[in-house]
Amino acid sequence: MSQELSCGTSPIVGLRFSIHPMADNFIEIIKGALREADTSNVWMHTDDVSTVMRGKQVHVFDTARAIVLYAAKTGAHVAFNGTFSIGCPGDSAGDVFLKKDDVLLNDPQIREIKQYVSSQFALYPMNNPDYMSVIYREVERAKEYGVFNESMHYASGLHGDIHEVFAFLEDSFTNARSEQYKHLVMTVNMSINSPSHKGEA
Amino acid sequence: MSQELSCGTSPIVGLRFSIHPMADNFIEIIKGALREADTSNVWMHTDDVSTVMRGKQVHVFDTARAIVLYAAKTGAHVAFNGTFSIGCPGDSAGDVFLKKDDVLLNDPQIREIKQYVSSQFALYPMNNPDYMSVIYREVERAKEYGVFNESMHYASGLHGDIHEVFAFLEDSFTNARSEQYKHLVMTVNMSINSPSHKGEA
Repeated sequence: MSQELSCGTSPIVGLRFSIHPMADNFIEIIKGALREADTSNVWMHTDDVSTVMRGKQVHVFDTARAIVLYAAKTGAHVAFNGTFSIGCPGDSAGDVFLKKDDVLLNDPQIREIKQYVSSQFALYPMNNPDYMSVIYREVERAKEYGVFNESMHYASGLHGDIHEVFAFLEDSFTNARSEQYKHLVMTVNMSINSPSHKGEA
Repeated sequence: MSQELSCGTSPIVGLRFSIHPMADNFIEIIKGALREADTSNVWMHTDDVSTVMRGKQVHVFDTARAIVLYAAKTGAHVAFNGTFSIGCPGDSAGDVFLKKDDVLLNDPQIREIKQYVSSQFALYPMNNPDYMSVIYREVERAKEYGVFNESMHYASGLHGDIHEVFAFLEDSFTNARSEQYKHLVMTVNMSINSPSHKGEA
């Protein structure tokens, strides 16, 4: 299925992502993170450029956070690039992974791991004439959450504890769509263990 | 400026991107590529997560292609992640870089460099009720160009000679917007010198 056929009016959430460890042993780090995370609540497929994950929203965010954290805790400088998507017209296929319960499989293992992250996100509410108001509102929400970092061209900066940043991203992804405007895309770029972050908690 | 204030009704094109060399000497590779490319036709700013470049469309694409190629020719496995944007409402600021002429500063130095690339792109024509048709049409254009690779969730695969892939991306970025629907976002992820590409020309 191509972009136009790939997403649906179903509540299934998709994430296409890549993990980029800036280290010679990048293969070991990527494979280790994918192995260490419990991915049994999502459908996943990896190709030569990225990995796609589909399932219930809670499990997509839980699994993504686990993969990023397991790559991060190797100490390598790691970048995460992801596009979250829901509600794209054209795909009416159901998915067996929507029948999973809501118990998070990764959170209990990872929630105590401390990790600073600097990231940038952008929201694209599709076919919504009022999309700029949605974006304004979510940037304000980031400020209330305490994870807002800085304004910039084409994105907004978020930083702090990785669990808080992920919690905001999931909340914003929920709030930036509506019954009328179901198709929402959110891009996220994270930088972890960067040499630029010396001294950050 | 945040996402909502950052882009404009002017013809200025923006690209927020990162280069991720999967190698211990990633800093040297990134800095080398940024130094080797002629960036004098675009405004650029680098922060701890990504780099933003703004200018005329021809120069943004020419400079991005040069940076990617200079990082690639080190032989390292390099990923490029970029979001191209034009026409976002809210920013009416002009830009001195729009006064540059159309002479490409990088193309003469790089056009003979051979490089295979596997990539994935997605188009987000904002506030356009007919956006799915635009996407369908551009996927067909990729097939006609001969750079289409495969259909997938949330993106479309492109591959082949990097100059041809960039030419398609620039053409598609032009064709996916219109006088009525000026705000267009295009995400691009490239994988170069990947261990998964053994044997690709």
